[in-house]
Amino acid sequence: MKMGKNRLEAFSDGVLAIIITIMVLELKVPHGDCWDDLLPLLPVFLSYVLSFVYLAIYWNNHHHMIHLCQRANGSILWANLHLLFWLSLIPFTTGWMGENHFSAAPCLLYGLVLFFAGAAYWLLQHTIIKSQGADSVLKHAVGSDWKGRLSPILYLVAIGVSFYWPAVSLGMYVLVALIWIIPDPRIERVTC
Amino acid sequence: MKMGKNRLEAFSDGVLAIIITIMVLELKVPHGDCWDDLLPLLPVFLSYVLSFVYLAIYWNNHHHMIHLCQRANGSILWANLHLLFWLSLIPFTTGWMGENHFSAAPCLLYGLVLFFAGAAYWLLQHTIIKSQGADSVLKHAVGSDWKGRLSPILYLVAIGVSFYWPAVSLGMYVLVALIWIIPDPRIERVTC
Amino acid sequence: MKMGKNRLEAFSDGVLAIIITIMVLELKVPHGDCWDDLLPLLPVFLSYVLSFVYLAIYWNNHHHMIHLCQRANGSILWANLHLLFWLSLIPFTTGWMGENHFSAAPCLLYGLVLFFAGAAYWLLQHTIIKSQGADSVLKHAVGSDWKGRLSPILYLVAIGVSFYWPAVSLGMYVLVALIWIIPDPRIERVTC
Amino acid sequence: MKMGKNRLEAFSDGVLAIIITIMVLELKVPHGDCWDDLLPLLPVFLSYVLSFVYLAIYWNNHHHMIHLCQRANGSILWANLHLLFWLSLIPFTTGWMGENHFSAAPCLLYGLVLFFAGAAYWLLQHTIIKSQGADSVLKHAVGSDWKGRLSPILYLVAIGVSFYWPAVSLGMYVLVALIWIIPDPRIERVTC
Repeated sequence: MKMGKNRLEAFSDGVLAIIITIMVLELKVPHGDCWDDLLPLLPVFLSYVLSFVYLAIYWNNHHHMIHLCQRANGSILWANLHLLFWLSLIPFTTGWMGENHFSAAPCLLYGLVLFFAGAAYWLLQHTIIKSQGADSVLKHAVGSDWKGRLSPILYLVAIGVSFYWPAVSLGMYVLVALIWIIPDPRIERVTC
Repeated sequence: MKMGKNRLEAFSDGVLAIIITIMVLELKVPHGDCWDDLLPLLPVFLSYVLSFVYLAIYWNNHHHMIHLCQRANGSILWANLHLLFWLSLIPFTTGWMGENHFSAAPCLLYGLVLFFAGAAYWLLQHTIIKSQGADSVLKHAVGSDWKGRLSPILYLVAIGVSFYWPAVSLGMYVLVALIWIIPDPRIERVTC
Repeated sequence: MKMGKNRLEAFSDGVLAIIITIMVLELKVPHGDCWDDLLPLLPVFLSYVLSFVYLAIYWNNHHHMIHLCQRANGSILWANLHLLFWLSLIPFTTGWMGENHFSAAPCLLYGLVLFFAGAAYWLLQHTIIKSQGADSVLKHAVGSDWKGRLSPILYLVAIGVSFYWPAVSLGMYVLVALIWIIPDPRIERVTC
Repeated sequence: MKMGKNRLEAFSDGVLAIIITIMVLELKVPHGDCWDDLLPLLPVFLSYVLSFVYLAIYWNNHHHMIHLCQRANGSILWANLHLLFWLSLIPFTTGWMGENHFSAAPCLLYGLVLFFAGAAYWLLQHTIIKSQGADSVLKHAVGSDWKGRLSPILYLVAIGVSFYWPAVSLGMYVLVALIWIIPDPRIERVTC
């Protein structure tokens, strides 16, 4: 069912494109026309940049993963929708974190949604591997998946420390993004 | 006219992706940064989850149905646009229901739009079957269509009881979603 | 350059899907939960229905027209973007007309944008026909194009009478929509 | 990896379509129904037209450029996301400039974002050329790229004069748009 895969890609691209773009709507145009009027927007802008990078990473990896998925079935479609659900909450958590200058509760919620999005991504990956049977191309490409194993641990630590030092948890979200921003040589090798 | 079908899919994917994503905009970022500030958003969030699941079901079934439609004609294009019209009202009814904590009138309107969306889906299915003639692949795949027959009855009952017990009608909307969330084995068998 | 045509379709589908969906955002969720609270939204809803139908017609005809366009060039891409520009103003004019209960100036502006969108559509059609040379498939399919000739006249009359009887001009917009809603048998015959 | 290129196009089309359309949301429906009520919206409308033209130019040139890119790799995907990031800020800078009647700081920021978008476009072009090796089709098509060389200089001059004469810098943004609106004969020749 190649067609099914095409629409899965098209729909995911559509949802991701909209999520990434409506975050900009949180950057509300200030009334004044001085540089000082932009200052209160700085934390909103910085959290926008972080979330843009996260969604870009998800799009990039989703793209590589689905490329190695020959056919879609009902479970894969639902696992994909489940991932999109968690990603769709990122504009909200981004806005809350940005408008409150990275205080404790918003930083925790931001990490929680990232954790569930990561879990949903792992579940989708697992569902595709299972559907491919014994000699799964995706399983071979993913390999030890140390990034996928490390990220949830880092998210949980970040969530834990957010009560005391939200700045540290924020730094860990940036760290996870940096780990992922480097494309996976294994999958890249197989797909290119 | 394969091309026509492709654009029908692409346009429907686009509209569904946007509908599903703009619902998040109803989750307005609260001004405070405490957990208590999120509490008033809980009913809005729950109604978002319900509507996300409904739209995911529609996308999933639409995807299976159009897969069995070899070619599009004018009637199919319009029947599809008619379905998208009713689905486009879901963000509004979701927002109204969530912001009023599932009170009577919003619960009724929510069910009414679901009822008309279901009717529009049935009409689209009927239009495709009719266009395929005597040995319609879709007709064969749909079979007795007990879900399609049961849903409108459940919607109408839910609309009826919403005057007295909105919670019961809400439970019935969840029930219909659960019935549909399980992919139809018949269509799945044919398409995979 | 088949690829060019595909992206022209994909981009137009995307823009049209978004235009058609963001109009719903004008239907602002009322604060109360009674049926009376919905009443002030009725004119906004009715103007939404009218504009939804107009954009559906544009999508439908655009779809048939591009189907008969074998290859895209720079002029066609720009003529298409010019059409999308005018269509992108429809959510604004729809909202202004709906919120002011179809009074004179909003009704005039609504017609003016429809007039320019119609002119842009004609220009795009003309550009494609010109690019196809002497034995243009599209020219043959369009035929006498009586709808394309009648619509601008009806729009101009509607704009003229909107000063005195906005209701009449509104009725004429509905009339033009009804004329177009019936698919063109000529193009349908060629493409199906 | 042809597939990769298709999704790169689809995702870029999605993001560009949304960026171009959400700018319209800055055109907020006025409460009154007289022509005078539209007057304050004129600068917002004019800046919308300018940004629409800029995004249309980017879509057009992006379309021609990717057409000459046979395969995508990780660097190209990220260079493309980087371009989309800067373009995603245009609705914000457009809104700020329009609401403040083209005063100094907003005009400067508008030019700054255009400058970075132009630089990101150049970087994407460079990344594709590099991936194509010695006999790059794109390099051949781009040629001397005088537009790509002239634009950043004009942007920087416009940014410089915006402190004293914002109107002049605005005129230069219009000038750059006019330079680009004419399709590049070199690329056009190769692709059509």
